Amino acid sequence: MSATADPDDPILDLHLGGKLEVRATVPLRDREDLARVYTPGFTRVAERIARDPAAAGRWSIRGNTVAIVTDGSAVSGLGDLGPLAALPVMEGKALLFKEFAGIDAFPLCLGTQDVDAIVDTVAHLEPTFGGIMLEDIAAPRCFEIEDRLRERLSIPVLHDDQHATAVAATAALINAAKAVGKELGELKVVVAGAGAAGTSTARLFMNIGVRRIVACDRQGALHRGRTDLTDAKRWFADRTNPDQETGPLRSVLAGADVFVGFAGRGVLAPEDLRTMADRPVVFALSNPHPEFLPHEVQDVVAILATGRSDLPNQIDCGLCYPGIFRGAFDAGVPSITEEMKVAAARAIAGLVDDRTLGRGQIVPDIFDGVAPHVAKAVAEAAVVPGSTTLP
Amino acid sequence: MSATADPDDPILDLHLGGKLEVRATVPLRDREDLARVYTPGFTRVAERIARDPAAAGRWSIRGNTVAIVTDGSAVSGLGDLGPLAALPVMEGKALLFKEFAGIDAFPLCLGTQDVDAIVDTVAHLEPTFGGIMLEDIAAPRCFEIEDRLRERLSIPVLHDDQHATAVAATAALINAAKAVGKELGELKVVVAGAGAAGTSTARLFMNIGVRRIVACDRQGALHRGRTDLTDAKRWFADRTNPDQETGPLRSVLAGADVFVGFAGRGVLAPEDLRTMADRPVVFALSNPHPEFLPHEVQDVVAILATGRSDLPNQIDCGLCYPGIFRGAFDAGVPSITEEMKVAAARAIAGLVDDRTLGRGQIVPDIFDGVAPHVAKAVAEAAVVPGSTTLP
Repeated sequence: MSATADPDDPILDLHLGGKLEVRATVPLRDREDLARVYTPGFTRVAERIARDPAAAGRWSIRGNTVAIVTDGSAVSGLGDLGPLAALPVMEGKALLFKEFAGIDAFPLCLGTQDVDAIVDTVAHLEPTFGGIMLEDIAAPRCFEIEDRLRERLSIPVLHDDQHATAVAATAALINAAKAVGKELGELKVVVAGAGAAGTSTARLFMNIGVRRIVACDRQGALHRGRTDLTDAKRWFADRTNPDQETGPLRSVLAGADVFVGFAGRGVLAPEDLRTMADRPVVFALSNPHPEFLPHEVQDVVAILATGRSDLPNQIDCGLCYPGIFRGAFDAGVPSITEEMKVAAARAIAGLVDDRTLGRGQIVPDIFDGVAPHVAKAVAEAAVVPGSTTLP
Repeated sequence: MSATADPDDPILDLHLGGKLEVRATVPLRDREDLARVYTPGFTRVAERIARDPAAAGRWSIRGNTVAIVTDGSAVSGLGDLGPLAALPVMEGKALLFKEFAGIDAFPLCLGTQDVDAIVDTVAHLEPTFGGIMLEDIAAPRCFEIEDRLRERLSIPVLHDDQHATAVAATAALINAAKAVGKELGELKVVVAGAGAAGTSTARLFMNIGVRRIVACDRQGALHRGRTDLTDAKRWFADRTNPDQETGPLRSVLAGADVFVGFAGRGVLAPEDLRTMADRPVVFALSNPHPEFLPHEVQDVVAILATGRSDLPNQIDCGLCYPGIFRGAFDAGVPSITEEMKVAAARAIAGLVDDRTLGRGQIVPDIFDGVAPHVAKAVAEAAVVPGSTTLP
């Protein structure tokens, strides 16, 4: 379809016609090329794979290709905008896959929010892809979809919003603790928002040694006495909050060393942070509108990180998912484990040197070779007995 | 996954790692670019589309993107090789989309051959794509899948093997009749193979004025007296074979002006063609092994065409589908009509001049601007009252 530019909005203008193209990696100049890469040449390759299906990843795009799957129910912090609106976001995710990890990723925006339909659709697409990244699917549906796909498919499946965000936040936490001179095991961390990202982030924090986490939803702290909890929130009540603190977010924040926000702008005011412990660390991760902007809290906090690429200390899943899938592909493993995620977080954290940390910068720049470094760490952590190369 | 070349087979070697990549069409050099094409920039575009879903084709890849969908049940004439083996073939189809029509096409090889599952999967993917090309799906399943998707989706759906092959064969027939000095309405055409391509080809031949078609399956001519016919074959018995000829292929071939083979090598011997009418025309369209090769029939037939790109007169759907989808996209129509297919066939035929025809060359070279010419004709034929631009 013909499309013309919108001179009034350079961002929209840049998105005209989309941000991706599907191109040949082989020459197609004449009939001799056609005979090689089209008919009859491609039938030779088809017969080769039919004889040895395990070779499909070698003689097709499959070995280097990821599907980015969404139902449009939680589009980049904006909520249920639907699959058409999700497409520019998924395209953006694909850009980073290619740029930083050389992976060919294709957006698949689904016109259904039914769990069974999503699981079946993705499962039917397994022969085309070497990996599946789930993206911007609302909680709690996202948990069941990821669990069922991990069980059903023999290729890596990763819910970006949960796990890549968790990896990036964990890397940032490792460095933030170092920057403010505190031990991970001594931190009190308050997490506002017990959705997909909050759950996975809390789990990964615990996997690196954080012991005291209090998570809050809109009703306040999650503790064993709550009777209104979903399964995902019950997990928090059972595994976190060792002192079983109760009450609203504002009250449990008292004495906290770290605040992690996945709860949207307005959940706290800057002055609410003044009850936190000395040298407070704040990760304001709601997108595109963080809980706090730098100028609002510069006199209150020691370290602020957000999810935005136009602010310092961007905690973004883009630091993680290209390298995680690159590492999984390079290692030829069928799934992404907790150990691989911890390895990715430590690799990212390790890219920031002490002098940089001293200036309050806890997250490396995505353009500074993060993905290859993560890929290497993930591939090393991916030594799974009995794991096989992708078919 | 790491992959190394196979020095013993240059064709396989060329397919190493697949033949497609997914690339950025926007710059991604620094954090300013990230803020534009990744977060927060892409959320602006998502919000824009959420307000006006009809704009999705404009601000995303959707308006120029086709899914090439297969279940691997009839891979390029080789049969049910499965979805993994189909991938190199689908990649080849995508190459032609990009090269000749500037369309970004992505292969989707499905791990199911269940009709309901295929229809649901493709329907769920509608928000991502501007068009669907079904490919290498066995008959009779392919008919039901295409019919149901055409009804359910509001974007063009085309089964390549049926319709694009039919368009190419129809273009070739127009020129072959001219070359041998016969009228379309006077021809006797025998079609061997009543599957997807045979059915659609016969229908399109009739739409340009061919009156006398006799189709055969392995049991011989399809006529009303047969009691063993599927719905698709029943269509032939009811609408073709005006003289209700009976008997094996060899006997109904007597006096035929044109033989069209979709039946596989060995269905006829070269000497069987000697009973055909004066100046016989043979389309030997089985792939990758045509019913006849040029040196076998050069003394018998006036014109031979095959489906192979390494032989003269290639009747290949590649002549058609890039231009047909380009025309449908340019016109912004929700489906591809019979009129659009006839227009495409006439456009392709018109690209061969009389002097070339005189040398027995009835099909234009795919590199000679076929797709833009077809696109223009299809868009002109696509004037459908009340049709709307793709959302």
